[in-house]
Amino acid sequence: MALVVKKFGGTSVGDIDRIRNVASRVKTAVDNGDDVVVVVSAMSGTTNRLVEYCRSAAPLHDAREYDTVVAAGEQITVGLLSICLQELGVPARSFLGWQVPIHTNEVHGAARIEEIETGNLRACIDGGRVAVVAGFQGLAEDGRIATLGRGGSDTSAVALAAALGAERCDIYTDVDGVYTTDPRIVPRARKLDRITYEEMLEMASLGAKVLQTRSVALAMKYGVRTQVLSSFENKPGTLVVSEDEIVEQEVVSGIAYSRGEAKVTVVALKDRPGMVAHLFGPLADANVNVDMIVQSASEDGRSTDVTFTVPEDDLKRAVKVLEDARGDLGYRDLVYTGNVVKLSVVGVGMRSHAGVARRMFDALAEKGINIQVISTSEIKVSVLIDDEYTELALRALHTVYGLDAVNEPVAE
Amino acid sequence: MALVVKKFGGTSVGDIDRIRNVASRVKTAVDNGDDVVVVVSAMSGTTNRLVEYCRSAAPLHDAREYDTVVAAGEQITVGLLSICLQELGVPARSFLGWQVPIHTNEVHGAARIEEIETGNLRACIDGGRVAVVAGFQGLAEDGRIATLGRGGSDTSAVALAAALGAERCDIYTDVDGVYTTDPRIVPRARKLDRITYEEMLEMASLGAKVLQTRSVALAMKYGVRTQVLSSFENKPGTLVVSEDEIVEQEVVSGIAYSRGEAKVTVVALKDRPGMVAHLFGPLADANVNVDMIVQSASEDGRSTDVTFTVPEDDLKRAVKVLEDARGDLGYRDLVYTGNVVKLSVVGVGMRSHAGVARRMFDALAEKGINIQVISTSEIKVSVLIDDEYTELALRALHTVYGLDAVNEPVAE
Repeated sequence: MALVVKKFGGTSVGDIDRIRNVASRVKTAVDNGDDVVVVVSAMSGTTNRLVEYCRSAAPLHDAREYDTVVAAGEQITVGLLSICLQELGVPARSFLGWQVPIHTNEVHGAARIEEIETGNLRACIDGGRVAVVAGFQGLAEDGRIATLGRGGSDTSAVALAAALGAERCDIYTDVDGVYTTDPRIVPRARKLDRITYEEMLEMASLGAKVLQTRSVALAMKYGVRTQVLSSFENKPGTLVVSEDEIVEQEVVSGIAYSRGEAKVTVVALKDRPGMVAHLFGPLADANVNVDMIVQSASEDGRSTDVTFTVPEDDLKRAVKVLEDARGDLGYRDLVYTGNVVKLSVVGVGMRSHAGVARRMFDALAEKGINIQVISTSEIKVSVLIDDEYTELALRALHTVYGLDAVNEPVAE
Repeated sequence: MALVVKKFGGTSVGDIDRIRNVASRVKTAVDNGDDVVVVVSAMSGTTNRLVEYCRSAAPLHDAREYDTVVAAGEQITVGLLSICLQELGVPARSFLGWQVPIHTNEVHGAARIEEIETGNLRACIDGGRVAVVAGFQGLAEDGRIATLGRGGSDTSAVALAAALGAERCDIYTDVDGVYTTDPRIVPRARKLDRITYEEMLEMASLGAKVLQTRSVALAMKYGVRTQVLSSFENKPGTLVVSEDEIVEQEVVSGIAYSRGEAKVTVVALKDRPGMVAHLFGPLADANVNVDMIVQSASEDGRSTDVTFTVPEDDLKRAVKVLEDARGDLGYRDLVYTGNVVKLSVVGVGMRSHAGVARRMFDALAEKGINIQVISTSEIKVSVLIDDEYTELALRALHTVYGLDAVNEPVAE
């Protein structure tokens, strides 16, 4: 008899019929002998409506009141799911964040979980009941409701699984798992049975938005085995686990991409100590989200070129900041372009395999694709290319790293 | 500097613009130097939607989960009103039932308030802030949210006013006060400046649904001066107070009516001890709501006729119960009719004035209206008449008791 935490997102509980469907999935697990704790989000659309209410009441509003309003969404779902479970003959009761309690810090609107008291939940589980817990919310030290920020229900689920020492945390979504790459672009993309936390982190932060980055980091920290699976189909998903649970490690597990990037090059920046901090300080102050950074020496050896990427939406602001600081920074020119895409090849296996990057560069060269920027980490190689080559590049790399599904003939 | 509790119902907070309007009314009171505690209901329509969700999830559902779901309605309003107050520069914070806390018993769905801890509210008020409290909800002994049942926000407001020793409890509604009778029927009806608790209780329970009966009873018990006034117009309403606050007491304060009644007469019931209990026991078991009861001796002196009224909707059920029990009760006949109305003349002044009933009977006789049943209490005389005479009778009585507005010529 295992304890499993199951989390269902907004679309999975979008109306009463879907909540009933969730209840019957939970019942199946209970009938199989599992102890179950369910974490749910607000019904889809509800949170947006509540957020809109707050904005309409005042563009800048007290985050504590915002939290009070928005937390009502999950409150509604936990009650309704408990009713649906009871209707199926499954004993169940709802828990709001303050009833568990899930203690958070006082950063309302984006709080962090600090401690989860498990006594009330344990009593519920030990009494043979399913505990239905409101995701996304907790009790701050000031005695008020705090929300964890968007996507916080994944984090709630993983944190509860860690606190309860659960066997597994199942995250039900509208996709059926994690793929080697986007199946809409690469038809031969495969669903992965397993992926490591580290890889999942890279995939998640790169736009394969299946799991919240924060929840993956938490799962990794506490070693919570986390499964991503479909709430509409009845089949296993992708298990996110530690490296040693994966026996035959592929060199590359998946290829992520992130569209809507822009590239900025600061040409002939005077090369003196502290200049880079000088450059990025004002950008950070202006909330420009800087990603890849590459620095290279200029021809004259006394100045340097710095290239970095920002989200396309931040480009205008970034350029303005740099132009304003031109006198201070003393660079010669500013070159920028939008419409670029970041491709990343991810895999813990590449740590022990040379030549991963090399194969990537070869494959792209063969297709005549120009690489604008390169950046590498221990388990990732990222390149920046022109957006129009996205599909071509993804398909080429997917084949080169042997990720294509075997049940479909590979046409060269 | 007085402490005032102000309660705004669902239509008064029906959308963000109306919530803003409430905020500016509260600001006016604060600017005048009052300490204010605001109690709000859910935005109109919200509670119905949440109740419908629960019903749709399961026709018979756990009242504790129902309470969790439905209490989300007021939770949303308190947050939004606090934001709107802050936007107007009025410091404010929201309190949910469990944050006050307002302790209730465990009768979920129709809980009674048992105790209100005032420390948190006092700290808020003493800190110069408006406390915005969710009506209709409290914290049950089981640590879960309990709701007070429909209309419970009036009760929350009065109970808070009592616990805090407030100067006054203002109940804002969509009418501007309590009238001598229904102004839709009697154009010369007057708004009352003051009315006693006892009179208000009779008026409220008789269908002048301005204040919840329960909240009036509570206001009377704790001597909470309660004002009924419009949330849309800026003028004084009707003050519900104890008798000694009313200097010139009218003999009759108002005339209430209750349509949709039915009359049942059990003819020639054997007159023996306990027979009446025998008659009404099965009706109570069948949840038939019996109101006026009149008993008279039969011609033979050995049997009795019993007449009573029930809501028209309960008539069928009442008749079935009595027919089923005919063998047991041993009556001769059962006579019943719907389509009757109960008229009640109400006034604490009638305790010291003879002839109030007499004037009523005379006035009705003069208009040729037949009185079917009469029932009296210390401050009320009620009669049952045919529904088609309702308007005629109301207008006649309104004139007879000198209630007509003086600023309009009285046409005889």
